[in-house]
Amino acid sequence: MVRALNYCGWGFEGDGLTSDEETALLAGYSKRFGGAQFARKDIPPPEAVNLPAPRVDVPAALSGFCTTERFERLTHTYGQSYPDYVRMIDGDYRNAPDFVARPKNEDQIAELLTWAGGQNVAVIPYGGGSSVVGGVEPDVSGAFNGAVSLDLTELNQVVEVDRESRAARIQGGATGPDIESALRGHGLTMRHFPQSFEMATLGGMIATRSGGHFATLYTHIDDFVESTRSLTPSGIMESRRLPGSGAGPSPDRLMIGSEGALGIITEAWMRLQDRPTFRASTAILFDRLEDAAEAIRVISQAGLYPSNVRLLDAEEADLSGFGDGRSTIVVLAFENADHPVDAWMARAMEVCADHGGVPESAEDDEAGHTSGTAGAWRTAFIKMPHFRPPAVSAGIIHDTFETAITWDRFAEFHSAVVSATRQAVEEVTGGPATVSTRFTHVYPDGPAPYYTFVGQGRHEALAEQWLEIKKRASDALIKAGGTITHHHAVGRDHMEWYETQRPELFGQALGAVKAKLDPAGIMNPGVIVR
Amino acid sequence: MVRALNYCGWGFEGDGLTSDEETALLAGYSKRFGGAQFARKDIPPPEAVNLPAPRVDVPAALSGFCTTERFERLTHTYGQSYPDYVRMIDGDYRNAPDFVARPKNEDQIAELLTWAGGQNVAVIPYGGGSSVVGGVEPDVSGAFNGAVSLDLTELNQVVEVDRESRAARIQGGATGPDIESALRGHGLTMRHFPQSFEMATLGGMIATRSGGHFATLYTHIDDFVESTRSLTPSGIMESRRLPGSGAGPSPDRLMIGSEGALGIITEAWMRLQDRPTFRASTAILFDRLEDAAEAIRVISQAGLYPSNVRLLDAEEADLSGFGDGRSTIVVLAFENADHPVDAWMARAMEVCADHGGVPESAEDDEAGHTSGTAGAWRTAFIKMPHFRPPAVSAGIIHDTFETAITWDRFAEFHSAVVSATRQAVEEVTGGPATVSTRFTHVYPDGPAPYYTFVGQGRHEALAEQWLEIKKRASDALIKAGGTITHHHAVGRDHMEWYETQRPELFGQALGAVKAKLDPAGIMNPGVIVR
Repeated sequence: MVRALNYCGWGFEGDGLTSDEETALLAGYSKRFGGAQFARKDIPPPEAVNLPAPRVDVPAALSGFCTTERFERLTHTYGQSYPDYVRMIDGDYRNAPDFVARPKNEDQIAELLTWAGGQNVAVIPYGGGSSVVGGVEPDVSGAFNGAVSLDLTELNQVVEVDRESRAARIQGGATGPDIESALRGHGLTMRHFPQSFEMATLGGMIATRSGGHFATLYTHIDDFVESTRSLTPSGIMESRRLPGSGAGPSPDRLMIGSEGALGIITEAWMRLQDRPTFRASTAILFDRLEDAAEAIRVISQAGLYPSNVRLLDAEEADLSGFGDGRSTIVVLAFENADHPVDAWMARAMEVCADHGGVPESAEDDEAGHTSGTAGAWRTAFIKMPHFRPPAVSAGIIHDTFETAITWDRFAEFHSAVVSATRQAVEEVTGGPATVSTRFTHVYPDGPAPYYTFVGQGRHEALAEQWLEIKKRASDALIKAGGTITHHHAVGRDHMEWYETQRPELFGQALGAVKAKLDPAGIMNPGVIVR
Repeated sequence: MVRALNYCGWGFEGDGLTSDEETALLAGYSKRFGGAQFARKDIPPPEAVNLPAPRVDVPAALSGFCTTERFERLTHTYGQSYPDYVRMIDGDYRNAPDFVARPKNEDQIAELLTWAGGQNVAVIPYGGGSSVVGGVEPDVSGAFNGAVSLDLTELNQVVEVDRESRAARIQGGATGPDIESALRGHGLTMRHFPQSFEMATLGGMIATRSGGHFATLYTHIDDFVESTRSLTPSGIMESRRLPGSGAGPSPDRLMIGSEGALGIITEAWMRLQDRPTFRASTAILFDRLEDAAEAIRVISQAGLYPSNVRLLDAEEADLSGFGDGRSTIVVLAFENADHPVDAWMARAMEVCADHGGVPESAEDDEAGHTSGTAGAWRTAFIKMPHFRPPAVSAGIIHDTFETAITWDRFAEFHSAVVSATRQAVEEVTGGPATVSTRFTHVYPDGPAPYYTFVGQGRHEALAEQWLEIKKRASDALIKAGGTITHHHAVGRDHMEWYETQRPELFGQALGAVKAKLDPAGIMNPGVIVR
């Protein structure tokens, strides 16, 4: 059974918050803004939206898998970013694709790319539509005669499983659940669970260097990629399956992070994990964020490789509806399919104790990942994408951004970013600001901090208010030495800062690669190379 | 004190085997070939070698750091490959560089590149000169007016150490010992010990994706690179120091493996380790290679991450002068600076026992890495580069090659490669062949097997005999799905198979990058892009 996508909301029709959950969410915001009342702006029904007529017709040869159907064009206009929702609720669909393609195989993709190259029509790859950085919006300027959203979710098969090497050949349009359900019978799992897991596709995850389940070691999907097969306008580019290689620069690393600008990742051989049978998980409370960060630094440099070692500051825990409102929480977990993880957990807890951390409660049982604070966090994490429509409807500005920085610069960086963001929210909204922090991933040489900001906006100015805050926060983090994105990707929204951060010559090199692989420049224009 | 390079031999003047060691080595070969006697061909003294006159003069502006001195030109003609030694002993220096540059800073490198671009002179980057794949030989064909060997070893400083993030900014010409001695006082170590450690430079290691100390997890130097700074003919390309990033394709991964064809890696921020204080090491004997390989597969997939888990087949152990001549040996080691590694070692030994492995002796003490079979192996490993001159002098063909393959294909692959190589040695030499195997590195999805072949050649045909064996072995491993190199690099010797293995479109993309970064095409021509 194929479920219809939610037209304005995360996931599928019928998903979303219950009425009670929504009331509680808004009550939380109200309390945060001193008892404020919110003017609700309703989501317009799809049929009321002003959708521009297609600029190009579906050619006869492609009509078997392309459609101009209204609902399809609406649901392929935006990703899941804050400004996407502002415009969805404003009924602004000026950048809708002219048609949506749903190819079933590489031949159909090749036909589409050939036609689009000849007609100067932009092709916007679309997997789960879960981009929060403007990566899937057909906003391609007047230089093109039209834009097609290329939905890859019909290429959703796990084609081949190699149990011995723990690897599988998977199509680029397979979603997280597609992949996990196909692997379950083999006792295997990809164990890559970004927040977008339910919708995100493998090709999209690879193209955007998605960040997943593991907080250390295998943070990005990059390291799980054994080989890739891509269809570019210039033809197929397929690398060998190899556990490791030293033969020239890695072909896969060129496609990893290419965000649809060089071609479509139609298949990849992915490295898998055994399903974990040994687990331990706990939450540790710290009085001071600095101490928690220091404990995490030591753990990250100790060769213990916890599956989870996420920091939540007091504000962040509170925003998610748990914690004591004053402690920094470190959620710590180990998992393994081969051996008990007690020795590992014991040493990590010892490090936390050395830095003043106190275990919340004894949770280190097999159910640990779904109970206690660790479990509460997991549940809240999965719910978060559903907060967006009610927040935007109520005129609340609530968004996140993420980065990474080396340990030596963390304290100064953190203070600069938090204060720039707080000041931006306060000045832009004229009201109070919440800025909170967590670490999503941790490396021996530094953390990947993730920031959330909340303020009360005005419906008539939400997009501009959001943009001003985003600009000031991004300027601050780039100036302080961070990366404009650790795992949300570049998209259209981050291009300005990405171009500052990226070595100028490397940008030119990517331009040369694009001219070779996508000579007509039709692949996701404006993203990565412009 | 600066020591002179060995003119025909590994390391510096005065290094090499003792007379007794050489006698023992040749006795070993003799036994292998049924008591054969070897006609010795002597290494010609440097002054007797026919060295072509330079085709280009050192321009006045570069004369402060460039020289046409005979000994410099001789020592910068070759790397350390088998055919390099054959030609050294033949006194064949037709590809000698016209002059050798030893810049002290980036400005001097930039001056050289500008001059070379204008004069159509090829520039061959030279670090430790430890290439075994023709990576440093100025064999540039008649398309150039000359060739300069660019020796980077004057850029040998550890410039900055960040103890907190465990990282250091290191110049590209720093050798393994330069790096380790500068880090020792900080309690840090790069812990990257390729067999070429003594001579190899950081820039060369990064440019060739060198494989180091750790048999699992951090196998290649790739993962230790935090950021790079490169000087290309088109200017400087420097990436940000970041513990992780998701902002577009990685700029560093383009330079990692570029083998001097895109520019010079003048500096890199490298991720470091604490100096290990807890160690355990042992050797396990298996009756069958298949069982040892299977134990290693299980260990590599168990999340234990041993620092060493190297397999030596019976022949390989015997060649290195230890073992019982019939057992496959697995050398197993753990090390850590934070906690004892007993739990890790216990579980790995349990896995070995499950597959029929028997510990050689109780070695799991702190001195384990320098005693017993593990220690004997380490000593032999360090000596190996010195075997080459006496072997070539005696007309012995003794060389190695290395690759990687997924576990599901290993058995078939191994059998195809061993039998093709053995047959090639037998047919080419008309005598007996030794073909042995070890695993140098291991991944969850497959091992990196390393093959050694030995046969008795004829002085007048050594180069051709070697090449025929090399071709047949390489053809077999590429046909069976491996990589032409796991960590020795591509150089000039592997280009044919690299081009087969590499996706054709990726080769075109690299060509486009080279045209942008090295528009005159002077950087290490013939390597990676041709």
